[in-house]
Order: sequence, then C-alpha cells, then structure tokens
Amino acid sequence: MVLHDLDTFSKKYKQLLDRELKHLVEELNAPSIIKESMIYSLEAGGKRIRPLLLFATLDAFGAAPENGLAAAAAVEMIHTYSLIHDDLPSMDNDDLRRGKPTNHKVFGDAIATLAGDALLTYSFEVINKIPNDAAAPSVKLNVIIEMAKAAGAEGMVGGQVADMEGEEKTLTLEELEYIHIHKTGKLLRFSVLAGAILAGASQSQIDNLSQFAHHLGLAFQIQDDILDLTGNQQMLGKPVGSDTANHKSTYPQLLSLDGAQAALQKHIVQAKGYLAETGLNTNLLLEITDLVATRNH
Amino acid sequence: MVLHDLDTFSKKYKQLLDRELKHLVEELNAPSIIKESMIYSLEAGGKRIRPLLLFATLDAFGAAPENGLAAAAAVEMIHTYSLIHDDLPSMDNDDLRRGKPTNHKVFGDAIATLAGDALLTYSFEVINKIPNDAAAPSVKLNVIIEMAKAAGAEGMVGGQVADMEGEEKTLTLEELEYIHIHKTGKLLRFSVLAGAILAGASQSQIDNLSQFAHHLGLAFQIQDDILDLTGNQQMLGKPVGSDTANHKSTYPQLLSLDGAQAALQKHIVQAKGYLAETGLNTNLLLEITDLVATRNH
Repeated sequence: MVLHDLDTFSKKYKQLLDRELKHLVEELNAPSIIKESMIYSLEAGGKRIRPLLLFATLDAFGAAPENGLAAAAAVEMIHTYSLIHDDLPSMDNDDLRRGKPTNHKVFGDAIATLAGDALLTYSFEVINKIPNDAAAPSVKLNVIIEMAKAAGAEGMVGGQVADMEGEEKTLTLEELEYIHIHKTGKLLRFSVLAGAILAGASQSQIDNLSQFAHHLGLAFQIQDDILDLTGNQQMLGKPVGSDTANHKSTYPQLLSLDGAQAALQKHIVQAKGYLAETGLNTNLLLEITDLVATRNH
Repeated sequence: MVLHDLDTFSKKYKQLLDRELKHLVEELNAPSIIKESMIYSLEAGGKRIRPLLLFATLDAFGAAPENGLAAAAAVEMIHTYSLIHDDLPSMDNDDLRRGKPTNHKVFGDAIATLAGDALLTYSFEVINKIPNDAAAPSVKLNVIIEMAKAAGAEGMVGGQVADMEGEEKTLTLEELEYIHIHKTGKLLRFSVLAGAILAGASQSQIDNLSQFAHHLGLAFQIQDDILDLTGNQQMLGKPVGSDTANHKSTYPQLLSLDGAQAALQKHIVQAKGYLAETGLNTNLLLEITDLVATRNH
C-alpha cells in the first residue's frame, strides 16, 4: 500500500481520464458533428470530483485505480450529459458554463440534445470496457444497474424535476434535501459505490461507504450554498449571490449562515465517521472530504 | 412447438407489454409528474413492432416469449424516448403524434426532455429484470451492450444527426440508406438480436437474423416512403405527401415509384432468404415480414 498525496494522485488520474474520455468518443463510428459536440463538453473541464472519488475508493481497498478508468469515464459522461441538458433554453437557459459558451450555444439546441443522449447511452456501453480480469460480467452488470438507478427518475433526473418544481417557492429543509440528495448526491454516491463494487467490497463496507458518500454529497451542496453567499466571484467563476437573485432556496436561507456552517460540519464529521468504520486505508477519501469542507470554489 | 397465428400472438404479447410498461414506471419512486409524462408517451400506442419482433424471435427458437418481456419493454422505452426528443421544438417541432398532442405540448419542453432522459436511463436497468433463470449475467450484459450500440451515436442517435444534416438537400441513395439503417434500422435489428441472444442462438443464427433484420428495416422504411406518396390519409393518420412538402429525400424520389417498389421486393426476398438459413420455425417472423411489405399504415 503506497501512501499518496491527493494532489499528485488527482493530477495523474485526471490526466488519464481526460485522455480516455477523448479516446472513447474519437473511436466512435458516428457523424463528426456529434463527436465534436460530445468532446466539447467533456473537455469543458470541471473538478472531475466523481471520477476522483471512484479512483480514491479503489485506492482505499489497495486495488489499482486504473481498473476503474472505464467506470470513471462513464460517470463523467453522465455528469456531462446532465449539464448539457440542464443548460438548454427549455431548462436553465444558460449561455455560459465555466466561462465557456454552453454546448447548445456552439452546436445548436438539437445537436446539444442529441450529444447529451449519446453520452448517456454510451456510458452504459463504456462500463463493459472495464478489463475482464478486473470485473466479472455479474460485477459489470451490477455497476450498470447502480449507475442507471443513480442517474434516472429515482436519482438525478428525479432531483432535477423536483428542483424545477421547487423554483420560485420557498422549500422546506426536507424538500431541499430531497433535491440535493437526488440531483447531485446519487451520482456522487454511485462513484464511491462503483469503486467499492469493483474492489469486491463486503456488504458492510458498501453500506458504510454509501453513508459516507451521502454525507459528503450533502456537505458539498451546503458548501456550494455558503460560497454563493460568502465566496469570491473570481475564485467561483460565477457571480456571488446568484441564488438569492434567482430566489433559490438554500441552506443559509433556511438555517441562517451559522446554521448552514454547523450543518456542514455535522455532515463532514458523519462522513468521516462512516469512513473510519470501513477499516480501509482511507487517507485520500479523507483528504477529499476536507477539501469539500474548505474549498473556496 | 405450437403454430401461432400472428394476430393472436400479437394481441397477447402487446397486452402483456402494455401492462408491463405501465407497471415498470408506476413502481418508480420518483416525482409523479415525470412518471405521468413517461406513461403518457408509452401509452400513446404505436405498432409495438420492436417488441413484437423480439417476442417472435424467441418463439422461432421455441423459447418462451415471456422471457423477453423486460427486454421488449426496454426497447420500447428507447423507441419512445427517441420520439419524445424528436418531437421537441428544437428538433422536429411536432405538435401531434398519432393524433394526440406530443409530450412537450402536454408537459412542457423541460419535463419532456427529462422524461426522455429517464426512459432511456431506465431501459438499461429494466434489462436486469429478465428472470435470472432465463439469462445469466453475461447474457444480460451482452443485451445491454448491444442495446447501447443500437441506440447511441453509432446507431439511432447517429442516424438522427445525419437525418438533420441531410434536411433540405438532395441525398444520394447511400446517404439515405445510412440514415435509415441507423435511425430506425439499428433498433429494429437489436430487437431481433435481443431475442436471439436470450434464446442462446449460435453465431451463424445471429448473423442470419441480423441480416434478416437489416433487410426488414430497409423494407419497412421504403414502404413508409411509398405510403407517403400513395397511401390513404385516414389509414396513415397523417397527411399524404408530407415528405414532398418537407423536401425530404425518399426512395421513390431517388428511384422512381416503380424503382422503390422493386427495391422493397428485393429487400423482402433477401430478408426471407436469411430467415430460411436459420433453420428455425420462423412463421411468425415471415408473417411480420409480409405485413411490412403490404401494410397500408
């Protein structure tokens, strides 16, 4: 077991992932415009937090993170498709993401819709590219089923629907948590779960890691809301206070800023508690958890 | 081996499928609006030609068509998602489908987009609902991979992109065939393939059935084009001559009406030839083939 520094680990596997994402789309025998559109959004950057969680989970088991490369690419494709569709004029109607024109501003609404569809569809095929000696068919099937659950109506899509239905009204804390647990939490949780499944985790390890990811996801979202109030516009790459301007329900609004900060700490402590229960070498996952709690963008 | 009448067979399994589709969505733990939107389009009817091909292929092997119920539901979900997205204002902008308002006219563009996403995602989870004694994990995985290929950038989505790119220009016969083989052909072919895989077909049977489905798909599309010129508006449920009005490239336009009818017959003969090579009891598949060649709607 090698002890890793998160920075080094993250750089290494981000690079591997970026190359793999581009390669996977380039090898498709498909009209070039759809491949360009898919690659455009895959390369738009982002924290790659989902792949990183998957790689770090494999590392916690002492398994080779490389074995998770295909699954990491798949989850990033799903995340990317969701951003493309969310940005469409009929949804959030966003022209910019991370300072770059959104997919439909470059390729048009129709190609953007289809690029999202293609990324989502491809993600399921990509799971099969996990090396056969790293995962039996039943394991790959298990990963696919968990991914579909996390991404679909019972997961991310359901969260997006609830988010849209909740717009312009004041939500209860319960409603706000439903949205976050589904819209972002389920796919974050899947990333950890996929690593655990590929590493051959025991049921109790899966349960603990699942709880870890649940609390990490909520902490991530609370910090997002806090940064929207207190952050630095340049660091965030988006205007501060946009939630308030858009009448979005947030944790600080429902709990006060102090209350939100206390809730954040509570979820971080719980996340770390569940990690400790796994009996694994979780230093990378712990570093990621601290990063989530203290990030400024 | 029981000899079936296609009418009786079709009624029985359509009913089973319709019930299963509704049940599968109803059991989702998701916001009710997305479930309503998914069910609305699944219940909009249609010929259910893909499920029927899947059931009839299983029957050809003497296998229980019921074993294909989940796969049939999955392929119909994918077909339905593609119709919902195709009808969106940013795509074909259709207000009506089979005489009923399209999904986005009832639920709005955002929910329609998400209902399509949810159906596509769910289809992969649904494959796992094939009974375990009817398909080992490796078989289910195989079905999932073939479904993703048929539906994605190398299949249906790629065909849709090519179709959009070809609008308002005169296509070559090769370009027209590319569109049809991908936009509709790949998913029809998958339906037959899924039945064959579930029935434990040999490689040569899979090859022959794949060729059968390829020619059947082209015949289906040529007859579609012919009906648009010569059909009865009331039978078709859509205006005759809409392809000409929309400047769409069609087989009759490229080959003349006589030439299109000859091409249709050629593909029907080829389809039947490949069926004969399988050594299976293919009377239902033959009946479906004749139906495609002679249908008037």
